[in-house]
Amino acid sequence: MNGAQALMRTLADAGVRTCFTNPGTSEMHFVAALDAVPQMRGVLCLFEGVATGAADGYGRMTGRPAAALLHLGPGLANGLANLHNARRAGTPLVAVVGDHATSHKRFDAPLESDIDSLARPVSSWVRRSLRTADVAADAAAAVAAATAAPGGVATLILPADVSWGGGAEPAPPAGARPPSAVPDPVLRSAARALGSGEPCVIMLGGAGTRRPALEAASRIAQATGARLLCETFPARLERGAGLPAVDRLAYLAEFAAGQLDGTRHLILAGARAPVSFFAYPERPGWLVPDGCEVHPLADGGDDVPGALEALAALAAAGTKPLAAGPGRPPLPDGDLTAESAAAVIGALLPEGAIVCDEANTSGLWLPAATAGAPPHDWLTLTGGAIGQGLPLAAGAAVACPGRPVIALEADGSAMYTISALWTHARENLDITTVIFSNRCYAILRMELDRVGAAAAGQAARGLLDLSRPALDFTAMAAGMGVPASRATTAGEFAAQLRRALAEPGPHLIEAVVPAVA
Amino acid sequence: MNGAQALMRTLADAGVRTCFTNPGTSEMHFVAALDAVPQMRGVLCLFEGVATGAADGYGRMTGRPAAALLHLGPGLANGLANLHNARRAGTPLVAVVGDHATSHKRFDAPLESDIDSLARPVSSWVRRSLRTADVAADAAAAVAAATAAPGGVATLILPADVSWGGGAEPAPPAGARPPSAVPDPVLRSAARALGSGEPCVIMLGGAGTRRPALEAASRIAQATGARLLCETFPARLERGAGLPAVDRLAYLAEFAAGQLDGTRHLILAGARAPVSFFAYPERPGWLVPDGCEVHPLADGGDDVPGALEALAALAAAGTKPLAAGPGRPPLPDGDLTAESAAAVIGALLPEGAIVCDEANTSGLWLPAATAGAPPHDWLTLTGGAIGQGLPLAAGAAVACPGRPVIALEADGSAMYTISALWTHARENLDITTVIFSNRCYAILRMELDRVGAAAAGQAARGLLDLSRPALDFTAMAAGMGVPASRATTAGEFAAQLRRALAEPGPHLIEAVVPAVA
Repeated sequence: MNGAQALMRTLADAGVRTCFTNPGTSEMHFVAALDAVPQMRGVLCLFEGVATGAADGYGRMTGRPAAALLHLGPGLANGLANLHNARRAGTPLVAVVGDHATSHKRFDAPLESDIDSLARPVSSWVRRSLRTADVAADAAAAVAAATAAPGGVATLILPADVSWGGGAEPAPPAGARPPSAVPDPVLRSAARALGSGEPCVIMLGGAGTRRPALEAASRIAQATGARLLCETFPARLERGAGLPAVDRLAYLAEFAAGQLDGTRHLILAGARAPVSFFAYPERPGWLVPDGCEVHPLADGGDDVPGALEALAALAAAGTKPLAAGPGRPPLPDGDLTAESAAAVIGALLPEGAIVCDEANTSGLWLPAATAGAPPHDWLTLTGGAIGQGLPLAAGAAVACPGRPVIALEADGSAMYTISALWTHARENLDITTVIFSNRCYAILRMELDRVGAAAAGQAARGLLDLSRPALDFTAMAAGMGVPASRATTAGEFAAQLRRALAEPGPHLIEAVVPAVA
Repeated sequence: MNGAQALMRTLADAGVRTCFTNPGTSEMHFVAALDAVPQMRGVLCLFEGVATGAADGYGRMTGRPAAALLHLGPGLANGLANLHNARRAGTPLVAVVGDHATSHKRFDAPLESDIDSLARPVSSWVRRSLRTADVAADAAAAVAAATAAPGGVATLILPADVSWGGGAEPAPPAGARPPSAVPDPVLRSAARALGSGEPCVIMLGGAGTRRPALEAASRIAQATGARLLCETFPARLERGAGLPAVDRLAYLAEFAAGQLDGTRHLILAGARAPVSFFAYPERPGWLVPDGCEVHPLADGGDDVPGALEALAALAAAGTKPLAAGPGRPPLPDGDLTAESAAAVIGALLPEGAIVCDEANTSGLWLPAATAGAPPHDWLTLTGGAIGQGLPLAAGAAVACPGRPVIALEADGSAMYTISALWTHARENLDITTVIFSNRCYAILRMELDRVGAAAAGQAARGLLDLSRPALDFTAMAAGMGVPASRATTAGEFAAQLRRALAEPGPHLIEAVVPAVA
């Protein structure tokens, strides 16, 4: 078999069963190999940023890597922003980047570029296959690298002649490095802090925001009085009725500082020490309070749930976790605002929903409105690179065909990767997209003031305005085959959301709301 | 003044008067400075790939750099593909990439990434401003680097605190390295080849595809019998009635080999030696015929028109250039195909038009159909990174407000940066976009066979199909404020194109055509 076939069979044998792609000429042998390896599902995206964002969503929901097949340096470049988000999420993901044939590299043809340099900033592992005989083993190594704790982006650069060369054989799966067990002295140090009587916060992140870890953390909190917080942008937060509730660290540094104020011990379980998202003049970026001791219990390479369970055994033996009770807001009437839209979503969120949240400023009321909804997963903008939500939803829906996916999107962010809607339609994915259409970059209006640039005039403010002309998301969605409607009152939004959730397949609702900021 | 104001004033003083941007928090001081420097026009784009592609179009048409203001590593990443095209075009362009404050870098905040590594593959110059006192001089150096022959992407990385810090002053413009004069021995060597009586080809590229260089090259061809060819993808080719005609090197290597067959002397004037766009099994990538001597007359850093004029003085004294005569195809009737659409365009192309050509396979008949149209500029996909045409058109229209711009777009490529249409509408740019809607990646269907992957089955071919669901470009355009129509016959297309060209402002025509391949 040729190199591409051996590569694809090796990926499939190692559990990589989905490939999100926008291919080009140098990937044609890989594409052709799809018919020889029916275990691999190819999902076409109209832009590489959709392919990488979808692979991120797939990896977050399954714990297994999808492949993203990309075309040379520019194709990788188009996918980098969502690979950045995947890297920050610790998502297992195998990026296969086609390149010119090895014999062709020296000619500096128009599409020639330095793929290796572009790949490194987002990748935990980069390798270039140089011989057809090596490509299967390289693919197995890529999967192992992608799935090593906590998960990362493994980038395999695949020259066209390595794909088309013959005599290749598949390679067996390679073992991935498992998460490390946390040593006893580290556990005992954290337990001492919890027993000190001084204010403690347990900061959860990575694998620490899933049910087993949350329940262990909740037991510790119940037994010791420690408070629980999680990262501002968790990769996958399990929440809702029956699960322990945990507040996210606030996005704005001044609110985050308030959440942490007075803390004397900060125990990190899969999370990093808190820093502000951006720096601002005259404000600290490091958010650990003065006099607070940081206890790094478990980082991304460690067994975070195991560490929390072991700590619970030390510090909370016999204590039960505290689960959030069921509760939904009443369906609101009247004006459609970010707040009333959140209430509608809280009232109607289905059990098992996967929420891909890129609502930005319009999402302010969502956590409270959905806290008592049936259990669901909440996926966020881990790396801050906008244009993630619609692709992420595509990947989550491919990963979990039995579960409803809800993409909550800011209008400005949606336009980055709007072509994802076509993939929603083509694959008939059960995704309900809600566009919060406030017709501005509201977060930047706020930031323009916050950074001390308050004297900004018309030219500056004009650059944050999306109202001239207004974007009609229902027309754009229809143009890509997604049924769409527009809601301008809370009642319309509720009726449209109920209908979209009841019907299988993709839907889009443009929720016209005033800007929060 | 603060660093951002000094930076912007320095850019404006050095002739950079337009900034295409999608800014973020770290760029808010730069945005605020727009009101203090009214000479700088800020143009909002909904995605960074639109901003960089527009800056490329602007630079190609004016010879002066526009600025592209980008947000951190992910914003740069989103703009890289069109910066790759700009690099291949030799376009002067200043990319300003905002970064975290210097004090914030160590915290590895979510948006932290290695901007410098991402910038290098597309940039001829990269600098990070580290002090407010330096930023103005750095900006002047960036403009000088961008405008040094042949033109390049100069990337200035701008930490937020360098922007907001006070006490800065503008810097005077810095001198850019001018093109080098070609030494006499090089000229004489080329003249000897031209006088040898052996078959000669003059290969034009870069500044060699503009009127003065074309006229000098045509004189040489007339006097010596040398043939003229230009690069497959020229940055800006001046053509039409009254200008010398020059064939482009064919995209497909077998046709390019035919164009070069028998050549004994290849004189390079702003072009590189011909290589195939991609490698294919068992086919050569290097297209210089065996036994052909290559004469590098002038490369991008040289004065290409000057070299051709000097060579004409040696080899073609007293000879006049041969200009293409006027001539348009008749308006066709009947089915709308890529061929009849090209005839309609040739029949109606207005004088002074700027054509941004990303029609790909559907563009096969365009060069012949427009060869005798009134003088116009033809801008192409220099780096092969698709998603260029609609942004390029935006930049060309901002650069040349008195000239009609025509974007000829393949459907698959259009979807990469479709949000450019919103900028067309917002700035009321006189752009007529024609989408060649063949509902597949036709070029990849062809390549799938050409690379020897002919046994491809349903799974592979399905990944090249855009018909499920069909993309409705008229709906998408309307959703972004661009009036649009759909043509399914040659007559409809002619009527719609005539109307669009007659009305100011943006229009879009979806030309439904069968796939060529």
